[in-house]
Amino acid sequence: MADHGSKRSGGPLIIIGGGEDREGERVILREVARHLNGGKLVLATVASHQPEGYFETYQKAFADLGIEDLVELYVNDRAETLDPEKLRLFDGAAGVFFSGGDQLRISSQIGDTPVEQRVREIHERGGVIAGTSAGASMMSETMLVKGTSGESYKIGDLHMAPGLGLVRDVIIDQHFAERGRFGRLFGAVAHNPRELGIGIDEDTALVLQDSRFEVIGNGCVYVADGAGVTHSNIAEARPERALSMYDIRLHVLSAGDSFDLAKRRPAVVLDVTVSHAIEAHAAG
Amino acid sequence: MADHGSKRSGGPLIIIGGGEDREGERVILREVARHLNGGKLVLATVASHQPEGYFETYQKAFADLGIEDLVELYVNDRAETLDPEKLRLFDGAAGVFFSGGDQLRISSQIGDTPVEQRVREIHERGGVIAGTSAGASMMSETMLVKGTSGESYKIGDLHMAPGLGLVRDVIIDQHFAERGRFGRLFGAVAHNPRELGIGIDEDTALVLQDSRFEVIGNGCVYVADGAGVTHSNIAEARPERALSMYDIRLHVLSAGDSFDLAKRRPAVVLDVTVSHAIEAHAAG
Repeated sequence: MADHGSKRSGGPLIIIGGGEDREGERVILREVARHLNGGKLVLATVASHQPEGYFETYQKAFADLGIEDLVELYVNDRAETLDPEKLRLFDGAAGVFFSGGDQLRISSQIGDTPVEQRVREIHERGGVIAGTSAGASMMSETMLVKGTSGESYKIGDLHMAPGLGLVRDVIIDQHFAERGRFGRLFGAVAHNPRELGIGIDEDTALVLQDSRFEVIGNGCVYVADGAGVTHSNIAEARPERALSMYDIRLHVLSAGDSFDLAKRRPAVVLDVTVSHAIEAHAAG
Repeated sequence: MADHGSKRSGGPLIIIGGGEDREGERVILREVARHLNGGKLVLATVASHQPEGYFETYQKAFADLGIEDLVELYVNDRAETLDPEKLRLFDGAAGVFFSGGDQLRISSQIGDTPVEQRVREIHERGGVIAGTSAGASMMSETMLVKGTSGESYKIGDLHMAPGLGLVRDVIIDQHFAERGRFGRLFGAVAHNPRELGIGIDEDTALVLQDSRFEVIGNGCVYVADGAGVTHSNIAEARPERALSMYDIRLHVLSAGDSFDLAKRRPAVVLDVTVSHAIEAHAAG
């Protein structure tokens, strides 16, 4: 049996579905600030091909929330990850925030480099690591890179890659309901149902500490559990063939809901056998 | 225990998610034609506020498939449903095809009228009743009328109404993955998990005979089963609140898959206990 569910140590991960409010109540950024507790934040704009403007936007958004000590980390290419000046940016930081763009830029530019090492160190000594959009996707061991939105999943239609692996046994997708990404998340889970598929709406986040997360923000977080799947055509079918997959267990979570990744269950309810019992009743 | 699952007699229902191919291979219209077996088809354009052009399009599409005897039924308003000339259109018909538009126009204009009676008679004596888009939605007893697409379900955000009730204990949605309607289908199912939520992609259809349907076409059919749901906030929450709902069982079906509405199971696999057993194994 795999050790499901990412028993993690280290600080909190705040995983954001993109499009978080930066001007109004800022529920999500406020949560990031709360964990920073006035400390220094590294804004990593690595995911972007054109990072201009990101820093100013977040600087403004965080300033009102009591975070004044904000520095930008950008690396144009992998060679720069050895630059001592870049690495010194992490000195004394209480957290790192990855902004959006292309998750493949994060993994390809900083994966297995001293920059990644600094991020891990901050995480391990209890700092907060937050990421939005591409910065959310890269959190998992295997990350979703590309796949069509707004349609059902076709077998040949997914690009996955190794992420930073801050959280195990999950695959994370973002801008989820807004861009119609249900199909591709189910397709990803079909590849290996060990992985829980987690789809996060815009302006919505999960705050993960140890193996449990809580949902904050305006939208939903969807958890697709393939553990009970009885059939899928993912390994058999032609690339243009639509997905077939029976018995996905799906949880729709919103603000205030908690989920236990180790138990693969919403945190407030009983064992899955309760669900089985209600189901058996319905079957007569 | 409710008599789940629509044990039906009568002819086949062909329920189409909209946007069916009308010029190429026409897999779905070909299936309609096959059931007509050269017989007369009534094209009901009632759902449309501006039905001009529909008839010509379908006439052309069906002509190549051997269906030459096609007549159009349109009613501007409810009073016209008593018009003997309109009612004579059904004489000798082997089937009825409802084109798209607004499902509320179908139910409000022909619900409980002699026109609806004619449709039922054709169905009961074994004729085929097909419907695409709005014509799909209206097939169920309770139909989905409105609700936002492309975002997660907010509690206050759904308009349902009584449909024609040709199939029981299901709620049907269409243009499903393409318009991002997962959220609203889960919301509909949350209202009463007795109803199976069925979401049909474009150029995709289910062919229902007795209590079993088969999927044809290019996309997917999603079946959301709320029988095992352990928690939902549908009755408690404020209208702007996002949905929370645990333990939905979801099936992703595509061409060739069959589903048994009476058993609430994909037709080729064993009992739900198989899914429970695999799940128990994963839980260690």
